[in-house]
Amino acid sequence: MQADGSGGRVATILPQTLVPDKWGVVTIVGVGLIGGSVGKALCQRQLSERVIGVGRQREELEFARQRNIIHEWTHSLAEGVSQSELVVVCVPVDQIASCICEAASYMPAGGLITDVGSTKRNIVSAVEGRLPPQVEYVPAHPLAGSEKSGARYACADLFQQRRVILTPTPQNTPRGLARIHSFWAALGAETLEMTAEDHDRMVAAISHLPHVLAASLVLATPPQWLPFAASGFRDTTRIAAGDARLWSAILHANRDLLQELVNEWEQQLVLFRHFLETGNVSGLQEWLARAQQVRHALGSGNPADRT
Amino acid sequence: MQADGSGGRVATILPQTLVPDKWGVVTIVGVGLIGGSVGKALCQRQLSERVIGVGRQREELEFARQRNIIHEWTHSLAEGVSQSELVVVCVPVDQIASCICEAASYMPAGGLITDVGSTKRNIVSAVEGRLPPQVEYVPAHPLAGSEKSGARYACADLFQQRRVILTPTPQNTPRGLARIHSFWAALGAETLEMTAEDHDRMVAAISHLPHVLAASLVLATPPQWLPFAASGFRDTTRIAAGDARLWSAILHANRDLLQELVNEWEQQLVLFRHFLETGNVSGLQEWLARAQQVRHALGSGNPADRT
Repeated sequence: MQADGSGGRVATILPQTLVPDKWGVVTIVGVGLIGGSVGKALCQRQLSERVIGVGRQREELEFARQRNIIHEWTHSLAEGVSQSELVVVCVPVDQIASCICEAASYMPAGGLITDVGSTKRNIVSAVEGRLPPQVEYVPAHPLAGSEKSGARYACADLFQQRRVILTPTPQNTPRGLARIHSFWAALGAETLEMTAEDHDRMVAAISHLPHVLAASLVLATPPQWLPFAASGFRDTTRIAAGDARLWSAILHANRDLLQELVNEWEQQLVLFRHFLETGNVSGLQEWLARAQQVRHALGSGNPADRT
Repeated sequence: MQADGSGGRVATILPQTLVPDKWGVVTIVGVGLIGGSVGKALCQRQLSERVIGVGRQREELEFARQRNIIHEWTHSLAEGVSQSELVVVCVPVDQIASCICEAASYMPAGGLITDVGSTKRNIVSAVEGRLPPQVEYVPAHPLAGSEKSGARYACADLFQQRRVILTPTPQNTPRGLARIHSFWAALGAETLEMTAEDHDRMVAAISHLPHVLAASLVLATPPQWLPFAASGFRDTTRIAAGDARLWSAILHANRDLLQELVNEWEQQLVLFRHFLETGNVSGLQEWLARAQQVRHALGSGNPADRT
């Protein structure tokens, strides 16, 4: 990819075929588990001419370069995105909006930005009205991840058969949206669109509240019993091992909808306590049977799944 | 094994060696996942001359016989235990005590009984003073299981490297206790002793509260978001697929200690809500970091583990 003298390269609009887009320079800002997995997939599938990593930690970046997760790296955002056709922002959720705005100011005209933020309303509203007109941001959230962090856990198949939610804004163009759909699809994901609010309500339920309950359970368990914990406890609490720095930002960003959901969820706990305190075994059994039915219908899932 | 004319066979006291005891007739009452796994392990490891299954469902019992989970079966408890050196009671937790007492009344002198009940105080106190003097009950709980149920999921290695908790009573003899330790050890388990109350406090924390939280989470999740649930949600809620009939009995049996623990656990939730409502991100991060540290120290565990 090279600047073409017109101030920047504008991607041709490819017909929507099954052949994935080939990208010029793709820059990944934040080369951790998710960013590293994006890079590894791009490199392995040869979807990009050049993959540049931008980050702070020299050692992590150099590790990523040596493992073909990225082709090159820099600490400078300005330098890293100056020729980018696409910038994928993979920094913690409370840094994404400012990172998008800063990156946009250095990018060539026609450049696209997407992200992997676990919440969307806060990012979309913080970015709104702050981007130069020649750069387009398409909000995204891959429902893939792990309680692990760091590029050393990067996996080229992390997005394979996983969902990526796009939450388009009024500023998105059909071309920009189509190319970002195509980008994530080329990494193996199934893309779909919803509003940022629907997205945030969804993750409050399927991701944020589970994290809170897992953490609270770990903290409420008397330490002397922990060595006896078998897989029931281990599975129920696995996500509590996730990075506290990242998760506090996520929960904080979604605090209004999470609070609403915690209030609704508490009604279930009130019900349970009532059955337990009144010795209503049949009520307890019906309550558990409803949960059993719903959970059974969900199936055991793919053991490779990690979100 | 045959009655020896003295009113029943008394097992010889074997020296405690690494060679597992060989049993005469072992009867398993309740040939489901756990009972079936006991039988399958006994048969495969040739630890017993004869394994008899007692149960209600002809089809399940016949399936178990054909799969070498048991050698023979009967619907009659009296018939099934009349020659038993050992009876392993694997019925739901609210039926164990009466089953033990009834079985004991039909067993030959010197017979031993153990069980697999997930709670111990209720069983021990219900059995106390109701057993004939020539039969001994040693309470046990293998920390192994699954959200699945039925003999078709029986697994000869279910107890391999798993813990079995014995909660001896004042009535237990050194011989009886030693033989039951040896029985579970021969199935691959590590046995250890604690009081019934300690046991019940422990399972409230590592098993019962996790089940309640998993069920409440499933029930509080808006159905339209369930199809988006990935492995975080799936793992956190897996145990909610457990049999509601069995679990309502377990939670009910341990309701006093479970209530105590729910009250303690709620303090964690109060703390979380306070951090969320006051926008105290650093407090939230510290709270999550403590959970992360504890959960991380626990490790990812054996994926074969199922409790």
